[in-house]
Amino acid sequence: MTAPEWSTDPSLLDTRRLDRSGVEPQGRPAAVVFPRTPEQVQEVLRDAYASRTPVVPRGAGTALTGASTAGAGAIVLDLTRMDRIRELRPDDGVAVVEPGVITAELDRAAAAYGLRYAPDPASLEISTIGGNIATNAGGLRCAKYGVTRDSVLGLDVVLADGRLISTGRATLKGVAGYDLTSLFVGSEGTLGVVVGATLRLRPLPDPTVTFAASYRGVADAVAASVALATARIQPLLAELLDEATLDAIDAADGTQLRKAGSALLIVQVDGGPREAADAAAVLGLAATDLRSTTDAVETAELLAARRGALPAIERLGRPLIEDIVVPRSRLAEAVPEIATIARRHGIPICTLAHVGDGNLHPIIVAGRPGEPIPAAAERAADEIFGLALRLGGTITGEHGVGVLKRAWLARELGPVSHDLQRQLKALFDPRGILNPGKAL
Amino acid sequence: MTAPEWSTDPSLLDTRRLDRSGVEPQGRPAAVVFPRTPEQVQEVLRDAYASRTPVVPRGAGTALTGASTAGAGAIVLDLTRMDRIRELRPDDGVAVVEPGVITAELDRAAAAYGLRYAPDPASLEISTIGGNIATNAGGLRCAKYGVTRDSVLGLDVVLADGRLISTGRATLKGVAGYDLTSLFVGSEGTLGVVVGATLRLRPLPDPTVTFAASYRGVADAVAASVALATARIQPLLAELLDEATLDAIDAADGTQLRKAGSALLIVQVDGGPREAADAAAVLGLAATDLRSTTDAVETAELLAARRGALPAIERLGRPLIEDIVVPRSRLAEAVPEIATIARRHGIPICTLAHVGDGNLHPIIVAGRPGEPIPAAAERAADEIFGLALRLGGTITGEHGVGVLKRAWLARELGPVSHDLQRQLKALFDPRGILNPGKAL
Repeated sequence: MTAPEWSTDPSLLDTRRLDRSGVEPQGRPAAVVFPRTPEQVQEVLRDAYASRTPVVPRGAGTALTGASTAGAGAIVLDLTRMDRIRELRPDDGVAVVEPGVITAELDRAAAAYGLRYAPDPASLEISTIGGNIATNAGGLRCAKYGVTRDSVLGLDVVLADGRLISTGRATLKGVAGYDLTSLFVGSEGTLGVVVGATLRLRPLPDPTVTFAASYRGVADAVAASVALATARIQPLLAELLDEATLDAIDAADGTQLRKAGSALLIVQVDGGPREAADAAAVLGLAATDLRSTTDAVETAELLAARRGALPAIERLGRPLIEDIVVPRSRLAEAVPEIATIARRHGIPICTLAHVGDGNLHPIIVAGRPGEPIPAAAERAADEIFGLALRLGGTITGEHGVGVLKRAWLARELGPVSHDLQRQLKALFDPRGILNPGKAL
Repeated sequence: MTAPEWSTDPSLLDTRRLDRSGVEPQGRPAAVVFPRTPEQVQEVLRDAYASRTPVVPRGAGTALTGASTAGAGAIVLDLTRMDRIRELRPDDGVAVVEPGVITAELDRAAAAYGLRYAPDPASLEISTIGGNIATNAGGLRCAKYGVTRDSVLGLDVVLADGRLISTGRATLKGVAGYDLTSLFVGSEGTLGVVVGATLRLRPLPDPTVTFAASYRGVADAVAASVALATARIQPLLAELLDEATLDAIDAADGTQLRKAGSALLIVQVDGGPREAADAAAVLGLAATDLRSTTDAVETAELLAARRGALPAIERLGRPLIEDIVVPRSRLAEAVPEIATIARRHGIPICTLAHVGDGNLHPIIVAGRPGEPIPAAAERAADEIFGLALRLGGTITGEHGVGVLKRAWLARELGPVSHDLQRQLKALFDPRGILNPGKAL
């Protein structure tokens, strides 16, 4: 076995110490290692275990929480060179991949067989399957097709001491033993290092019909999205844009979205003509404007507002992307309350939501990039987390805990659960070398 | 707080020491307790923890593995009186239930709102949600809509020492902390006692179209089922009946199924007219006979063969229902190999399969009820488990490990994983009182 490539070049290390969260770790990691095989990962872990050196596993570094930041003394385990699709077995509905495979590339490879890899985080063109697994990434179409965990059948994992285990199964179903697979998914590299994954592929659905419906306010838009379920419609995608977001897009792109209504709902369905007709009827009931299309170019136009939201908001200042979930029925309370929080602290907050599963992304505009984050922005974030828990929700829907939300995680879990989770961490990582200070 | 009802009446105890596996535990349990509240479960566990008394949680006792058998000295925790649907929130797509709720009753309650609880084990009219969670029960429609784990959002669990925790969330999405929910699902009561569950409800789909397609042999039937995925069709249900099963049904019911072909494939789709037409074309390609219907009475007739299979096989002798999974593409090897195993041991084995997910139920006819199980039947079962592992599959798809499959579980997991699972068990249950001798 050859030793893995590694580097201590300061300029290279500086590209591997940050993620997209804005979190600044103390100091610079000791080295970055680029393994190409599970055996090389095992070797790195064995050495780190013996020397009690912190190891920070890393994919594309698109985490929004600090989960893949690395400070002084750490070894960064950059897994992006383990990027092969090892097997794609259309008859089994299964793919076996290395952790560095880019999510969208797997999806495109599956499409050649009439299949797809369903989870679609916004970062899918640059983020890796390994990173998606570490954070249990969601996405737009997870309302219907599930989050990353729902597509992971089995994992190859290197444990803290360098031993390799396989969890789960290579089949679509199986219940042998405790579900270690689900435990590793979303654990942000703190329980083991994923070096291989067996993933579920699903048949590509019917072509989609896309709707863009404007409403007088958020309450009407939420009511329309809830009414879809009652009408037996499971949208593939249901995205809500609030008034502040529409204003930001109009200012950036010269559109007139806000004029058509102060809330915009973008919905896609893929269940065939009957479902599409029913969706049009339900969405149209209270809409001030309703457009729909099956044409690819027009679909892109209708989706442009959603895709353009973050760039438009970035023109206002540095975006802090929050990620709470509330029960769907409480969305109509949550969105105006977030607007109230924004006014109280004198800070713009634009809210996007995956309404199908109640997942809100309030985007706090927190000063200018490079400047310190204003205290008012942090207070607003705190109030948003408190709101999520008060409405019976959670502090993170799909981005994870990382460094930023550890204090709030303790509040959400309560002392008994939190203690149990710490004991789990200690069982898997008795020397505390795996991405220390993250996730818990 | 009032103390829970309990009994030491021997005739009552005898109804609580067995499940549907045929496993005979040694002796008779000490008592059966009927809690009605989580607090009463906590009280039982606190006492049992202090006195190191084994506790066997139990729902309807439909386990096929010995998981809910209880021997001398054990306290049986019968949870069937905790049977309330606490909340049904259609707007949130969520139900909150006690563990003793009958699965089919929850599904019917949801249907009143255009929703459903998707997991449908064969026992759904008598088994409980708590039991379904303990075994991560599957069912016919899980090929499309997932197994029990895919519908469990959060749990209330009493730990071994009597402390109560809530895992997961009340929302459709969330990634705060390690996924304890998935760890408890399928753990057969060995890590904690589920006293409440927050479950996902999904929109009822389009009306189904049901097909019954006969083929010359299993290979053609499997090829047809695999071709569905390639044609972008995700069947709700796809059931394969082999030659021995068709013979048994014909003998019991006076039908002529075997005459139409030596393998029968029953398929339901719920994706609308386009999908139904495509399914007819794909299934018809190599079929020797193809029938389809949307009529409720005719649907019941087409499904009658599947539903009547087990009663027909029971006329041949005591059925041992096995439960292996292989990659879908290996089904065409697995079914004839099982027939070869049957011939080699001179024992009838009838095979049913959920082909969508590769889950086979070879039913070994093992002498007469009340007589000892013939050694040849046990050898045949062993060879079936070996076959599953050799084809890259698993020894249990949806029934679990219980008592019967512990030795094979160790082989499937390998020593490192098995050891890790034992350490997990020790972490959650340091005194070994929770359903000891099961699942691991």
